[in-house]
Amino acid sequence: MLKMTTTRRRFVRGGMAVTGGLAAIPALSFADAAPADDTLPNDTFRIIHSLRSIHGDFSDKRVSDTDVKAILEATVRAANASNTQSYSIVVSRDPDKIQKVTTYRAGCLFLYCADYTRLIDQGKHLGYDYYADNLEAFVTSSTNTILAAQTAVIAAKSLGIDSLLTNGIHRGDMERVWEILDLPQKSCFPLIALVLGYPRSEPPSKRGRLKGTGIVHYERYRRLNKEELDDIVRQYDDKTLHIGTDDWDKRGHKHYLDWFYKEWARAGAKPTTAEGQILRRLRRSGFVDAQQA
Amino acid sequence: MLKMTTTRRRFVRGGMAVTGGLAAIPALSFADAAPADDTLPNDTFRIIHSLRSIHGDFSDKRVSDTDVKAILEATVRAANASNTQSYSIVVSRDPDKIQKVTTYRAGCLFLYCADYTRLIDQGKHLGYDYYADNLEAFVTSSTNTILAAQTAVIAAKSLGIDSLLTNGIHRGDMERVWEILDLPQKSCFPLIALVLGYPRSEPPSKRGRLKGTGIVHYERYRRLNKEELDDIVRQYDDKTLHIGTDDWDKRGHKHYLDWFYKEWARAGAKPTTAEGQILRRLRRSGFVDAQQA
Repeated sequence: MLKMTTTRRRFVRGGMAVTGGLAAIPALSFADAAPADDTLPNDTFRIIHSLRSIHGDFSDKRVSDTDVKAILEATVRAANASNTQSYSIVVSRDPDKIQKVTTYRAGCLFLYCADYTRLIDQGKHLGYDYYADNLEAFVTSSTNTILAAQTAVIAAKSLGIDSLLTNGIHRGDMERVWEILDLPQKSCFPLIALVLGYPRSEPPSKRGRLKGTGIVHYERYRRLNKEELDDIVRQYDDKTLHIGTDDWDKRGHKHYLDWFYKEWARAGAKPTTAEGQILRRLRRSGFVDAQQA
Repeated sequence: MLKMTTTRRRFVRGGMAVTGGLAAIPALSFADAAPADDTLPNDTFRIIHSLRSIHGDFSDKRVSDTDVKAILEATVRAANASNTQSYSIVVSRDPDKIQKVTTYRAGCLFLYCADYTRLIDQGKHLGYDYYADNLEAFVTSSTNTILAAQTAVIAAKSLGIDSLLTNGIHRGDMERVWEILDLPQKSCFPLIALVLGYPRSEPPSKRGRLKGTGIVHYERYRRLNKEELDDIVRQYDDKTLHIGTDDWDKRGHKHYLDWFYKEWARAGAKPTTAEGQILRRLRRSGFVDAQQA
């Protein structure tokens, strides 16, 4: 259904619109420029297509309390299983704290946690036991949590506020997140840090995406054949698509994906032989079936 | 920062706007009515605030191929870790198949799977090993996957297309999903089924949400005190807020939450004593650290 030729042309066109004359245009120009893509059906699509990640390079411009409130009221509108809202959002406006938690410096953080604490406390309050002590509970609440997070991302962008979603909270010693933010030891797990703000400077380009073949399957899953895998190598290498990063050839690789597998994804090059931090923490938080510490 | 009084008044107002005169208004009236809330900053906020779940009661009106294509191009715009796009979307337009997979009858399904198959196959194709054999990989790809799914939900709603996000795929024998859709046995896990369509009739009300206290924490996590827990019991019982379902008192319960804990959440009333289907399947799919079958 998705024709690659059409697709590619649109990406290239989008890329050129953005990279041409960047220095001259003000901070939020990308969002402003996006509506020029008259193939998109409405403003919400233009907002979605203008999403990009700001990798920590946020300016000092403060996200207003009015905007924070509006985004919080929007984020809870995401669907969630049985309307249990099994998540918590810890909001911080403290740059030092945000840096300790996420490693990025910014003025506004929404930390999204899969969390059953409220439901458990509420149950106790009324005289009921409630257990969320298995991976089904974790997967369900993770889904609720991330649906809410992306709703905030899109709401924020519609206000001209950029974002970074980072799982950097899972790097280094994760326990710091519990300590800094007083997270409950049980039944709560921070999944993603949403950092909100305004970029200090415009990113040079918007990252492209694979779409169609390899991402979308029709009626049944189909693994890629050799030609399709070659085509994906080529898409990553095509610098006008911005799917890969741009400096793989300067680092002496033949393809972007050579850089990706050899250098970037080194951790995935060997099978896992021991339990990692996430499994250990999920156990400690009580989310692994019949294995609570 | 969020004052409950303001909040409550807005919910009540929204509720009344919707419940008044439903029979007389055409199918997509709710989305049309939403912009009447002039407190929202823009159309994207109005789309987000008009989100609601259609529980399988979809009409025969077909979601157009043009809209499916546009939503697929939007869904991939969500942020994702290292631009790996570690997900797959299986699209079905076959109502019989959709019913078997989700238990709901509809004409359009996007099944969102956390999935490393393409990355693994792509690695092999270039001569690299790539392993996604731990819960860190699962949590990262789940996050990528669900961010994409919610982007599709919001994009669809902006086109007047309603949705249902269901983890019903995890109920009953999950293996059917792999069989019906030929999903890879390893490194792929279906997380959420997004059913798209037009409602056969308008839902009587939009579900309300808890917000502020109990959901949002400022600077550090704070567990609720007795008064706050009482207030949440009261919010669930307030039928103008539509947070709980409406028939708990007819079923002989004092509070909605009595119904929730005693009847709805019975599975959570006892501790988990054996491994469940999700853990078993995550193991089989190779996502549990150092425990591959």
